[in-house]
Amino acid sequence: MSPPRSTTRSAAGPVRRPGGRTAEVRRRVLDAVRAHLVEYGYDALGIDAVAERSGVHRTTVYRRWRDVGGLLADVLAEATGDDWRPPDTGSLEGDLLALNSEVYAALTAEPPLTTALIAASFRSAPAADALRAFWADRYERCAVVVDRAVRRGELPPGCDPRRLLVAATAPLYHELLLLRTTPAAQLAARAARDATLAARAGAFTHSDPGDVGPGRRQV
Amino acid sequence: MSPPRSTTRSAAGPVRRPGGRTAEVRRRVLDAVRAHLVEYGYDALGIDAVAERSGVHRTTVYRRWRDVGGLLADVLAEATGDDWRPPDTGSLEGDLLALNSEVYAALTAEPPLTTALIAASFRSAPAADALRAFWADRYERCAVVVDRAVRRGELPPGCDPRRLLVAATAPLYHELLLLRTTPAAQLAARAARDATLAARAGAFTHSDPGDVGPGRRQV
Repeated sequence: MSPPRSTTRSAAGPVRRPGGRTAEVRRRVLDAVRAHLVEYGYDALGIDAVAERSGVHRTTVYRRWRDVGGLLADVLAEATGDDWRPPDTGSLEGDLLALNSEVYAALTAEPPLTTALIAASFRSAPAADALRAFWADRYERCAVVVDRAVRRGELPPGCDPRRLLVAATAPLYHELLLLRTTPAAQLAARAARDATLAARAGAFTHSDPGDVGPGRRQV
Repeated sequence: MSPPRSTTRSAAGPVRRPGGRTAEVRRRVLDAVRAHLVEYGYDALGIDAVAERSGVHRTTVYRRWRDVGGLLADVLAEATGDDWRPPDTGSLEGDLLALNSEVYAALTAEPPLTTALIAASFRSAPAADALRAFWADRYERCAVVVDRAVRRGELPPGCDPRRLLVAATAPLYHELLLLRTTPAAQLAARAARDATLAARAGAFTHSDPGDVGPGRRQV
């Protein structure tokens, strides 16, 4: 996911970019959504504000994106649609460290676009759906990290890629987003190492110890 | 953390409860906050709505809690102040499973009070501070789970309790709160087992592989 980009214009008018006018309109509108979200928050987002900021006519914005949920969903859909692939560092721990470094950078970035998008997902069902789709896609693309580790003989077969990847990344989201711990770069390396040790010890395999009944409640 | 409780009244007037009138007022107000939050959401919370629902005069509510942030903070402070201790099941995996079953129950409860409180923490700094304090307190109380495992010889000394506990619980928050995965009770058992395997394999110790530079951005 890219940070908000500014719209480049020459003195003679809009710069031609690949994808033509429709792509250019989308780029300007989504840039405006990102910038407005991190500057003023979810409550200030609206078709009118985005139209004004992007310089795109409000009728066009309304026709194509309908409402704030549609705009946020498209910001996330755009992020999913890129050609991102997980880096191949030659080891499971190295690959997980590379992934976690990206997650860490996103969760501590200024402006805090990722955090703002996640916060918005608690207020908008389309944004929540788009965020879920974005993550599902990322976990699918990252499954190759686990496949490679199995092929190298680093891991036993039967390791569930999504479960390992969630275990490797979840502590970062938990610390930085929910517990709001002061960021410390070693969080990324620690979670990568802990998940690697767990996987090598046979965690994340499909054998279940059985269902769990409900317990006492806790936040 | 308890679910919203209804206020009990006899025909003759308010029932006497331990703690006297001040405690009774707090109980009624916090009950109203919980019920209103899960029924109508953060946007509908306000001093007036809470005063009306609780039957406590708005001046009293305003004087004691000031605003919505103060009300949410006190809901969380009340949850922290209870006499909760982690169950002692005799094994690390059993203890983590008991904890995770509580987290699972809280995150899938109806009405979804925990989820609503976490969502509110993205909108209110006092609620965010109170949530952080609540979790810090829980992790501290749960450190005994790790101490016991070390004493039993299940784990090597040097295991960081908070890091192990975050690793055990974070996948549940990640799946149920952020990824909005369809709840499956085995999530609790799987995360408990994975964290136990990791801890036995030497994870969550203080040796760091070094700092990590920032990587590419990703949601």
